[in-house]
Amino acid sequence: MSGSPTTRAQVPTISFARGAPSTDIVDVEGLKQAAVTAFDNDPAGLTGYGTAVGYVPLRSWIAEQHGVPTDHVLVTNGSMQADAFLFDELVRPGAAVITERPTYDRTLLGLKARGADLHLVTLEEDGLDVEEVAALLRDGVRPTLAHVIPNFQNPAGYTLSLAKRRRLLELAHSHDFVVFEDDPYVDVRFSGEPLPRMLELDGGADSAHVVYASSFSKTVCPGIRVGYLVGPPAIIERIRVRATNTYIAPNMVAQGTVYEYVRGPRFPGALERVKNALAERVGLLDAALREHLPQATFRRPEGGYFLWVSLPEGEGHDVARIAAEAAARGVVIVPGTDFLLEGGENAFRLAYSGVQAEDVDEGVRRLAAAIAAARG
Amino acid sequence: MSGSPTTRAQVPTISFARGAPSTDIVDVEGLKQAAVTAFDNDPAGLTGYGTAVGYVPLRSWIAEQHGVPTDHVLVTNGSMQADAFLFDELVRPGAAVITERPTYDRTLLGLKARGADLHLVTLEEDGLDVEEVAALLRDGVRPTLAHVIPNFQNPAGYTLSLAKRRRLLELAHSHDFVVFEDDPYVDVRFSGEPLPRMLELDGGADSAHVVYASSFSKTVCPGIRVGYLVGPPAIIERIRVRATNTYIAPNMVAQGTVYEYVRGPRFPGALERVKNALAERVGLLDAALREHLPQATFRRPEGGYFLWVSLPEGEGHDVARIAAEAAARGVVIVPGTDFLLEGGENAFRLAYSGVQAEDVDEGVRRLAAAIAAARG
Repeated sequence: MSGSPTTRAQVPTISFARGAPSTDIVDVEGLKQAAVTAFDNDPAGLTGYGTAVGYVPLRSWIAEQHGVPTDHVLVTNGSMQADAFLFDELVRPGAAVITERPTYDRTLLGLKARGADLHLVTLEEDGLDVEEVAALLRDGVRPTLAHVIPNFQNPAGYTLSLAKRRRLLELAHSHDFVVFEDDPYVDVRFSGEPLPRMLELDGGADSAHVVYASSFSKTVCPGIRVGYLVGPPAIIERIRVRATNTYIAPNMVAQGTVYEYVRGPRFPGALERVKNALAERVGLLDAALREHLPQATFRRPEGGYFLWVSLPEGEGHDVARIAAEAAARGVVIVPGTDFLLEGGENAFRLAYSGVQAEDVDEGVRRLAAAIAAARG
Repeated sequence: MSGSPTTRAQVPTISFARGAPSTDIVDVEGLKQAAVTAFDNDPAGLTGYGTAVGYVPLRSWIAEQHGVPTDHVLVTNGSMQADAFLFDELVRPGAAVITERPTYDRTLLGLKARGADLHLVTLEEDGLDVEEVAALLRDGVRPTLAHVIPNFQNPAGYTLSLAKRRRLLELAHSHDFVVFEDDPYVDVRFSGEPLPRMLELDGGADSAHVVYASSFSKTVCPGIRVGYLVGPPAIIERIRVRATNTYIAPNMVAQGTVYEYVRGPRFPGALERVKNALAERVGLLDAALREHLPQATFRRPEGGYFLWVSLPEGEGHDVARIAAEAAARGVVIVPGTDFLLEGGENAFRLAYSGVQAEDVDEGVRRLAAAIAAARG
């Protein structure tokens, strides 16, 4: 019965779709120990309601990491919830908002749902085209905020250069808008040198123009759902009230576990393991793309989860069809069109965070076959 | 230095304000073990993102408890988050909404924030005055939903009778509104017989007019922040989309821990311990009120956390002043006015869930002194 119709279904699917770590690079044992330590050290704090600012020791730890007083920090159930609160607070219907083009699909959805007047600005290999932002400002656009993923951007994997970080802050000051520095990937850099956060460049505790968000999803694990905001106390206080009225307080058991984990002995080694695995996967992906998809262009990222692949323009690529052909061959990608309001038909996002090293080459082989089939 | 200004500050404050269990009646050891078991049994499920429907095994467990298919259930970060999603989905500005009078202050806040046209209906000792609801309907009010806390209501401690549950459902059918059965206290009944849920009376899986919410805050602990909705799949699906766009998924570590805990050997005994402690505290509170505040009226509840105290009308009580005098004497209460749009100056809520048995009498003594002082 070789070549039977069931053969294809037996090939395990390789997913380049989900921006999440494979379970083998999560330190489950360490997390379990951290949970036990947290219950032992602070039973009342873990099991009681707490308040919307978050688990107090974790909030203080985050404040220390960023060199700000605690009233600049609010811990949330994952950083997307933080984004949602900030958008609810700042984005009225019709408010002008700048985002990168392409950008995270859920950010676009969230802003569209709130009636934002979206201005998508070209994302270059060194990040947002800040002179395009300056041109928008000259044309009279008055943004409430600019949403930027500065490190290893989702979906492109690009990083905003230091010069552009400075220039964006200059524009934020001269035109009084908030830079929303959405930075969940900063701590999973596996090559190159880290750049200063815009929050720091703007004076840290003295910054009035940056709201910073990050998360433990990439350094601890996604299922723990702990993210946070750092920003001017007046904005943080408004979001605290909103959070109280939404859910009383974020998850204390999860935050207590994160607190013990990030202070504990296993965290540095576990983070190294994550970075090494990501570095290995991106190296294999880079090699496989060069071999099986020589016509594709992409920039190898220095950290994070994602790589953006473009196929030559003018060849009439239809990424929806490519994705369908890929799915039929047991490989999953996210079409470029998902990250844009228009265009992206010749592009797609590959997330390598969840793909085992031994599957990378086979995944790209299948993808190359899908691209060939989609053109036929 | 006896009688020095520091004496009063040294008297520990007794708080009847917070609807939360004291830590001594939380099974911290059992929760810790459940967390370990959860990480051991399902490391990928606990640490991965999961989806907005909730942790799949817990969702199935809840569905079984309520005798409904899983697509009727959505697990959330605490039940107040569930309320918020439901209100966001159903309550447009100007929509008529019925609530009890008095009712949970955060419910009123949430509905007012969404621009609801609120109709507060008298709460009697056997629950909502359903004939007052019928009169509103006759007068042309067309509610989107009626929010009811059927068991050991917050703030009053009253329970909706079986006859009234049936009558409310009849009205919901004839006038096509949703009964939002907000039921976090159902499992902490310490005397009397349990009544069927309106969800069950309306046909369980076949119900089109009841959305049910509950929580593990009162049976497991508040800091774990796990609540849920049960309702018609079409509504649940809309809320699933909203939840995905808000936070991707609720906390998997917390839900996995709850799942192992409620299935585990310690849960029944721990729940008995909670109920026994609540029963003891309400007994002491009842006796102390009769002794120290004979002029007060109240109904001794059969479960839950709260007891509503009314002082005689026409005596010019000012509950804000009583609360201030009480605070000065080291006892904290929540004024009745917090649970109403108007009135409540002669009433307050006492939460006995967080007060140790040995403190109840002293707390009521202080309160009686405060009431006397507030009149002087």
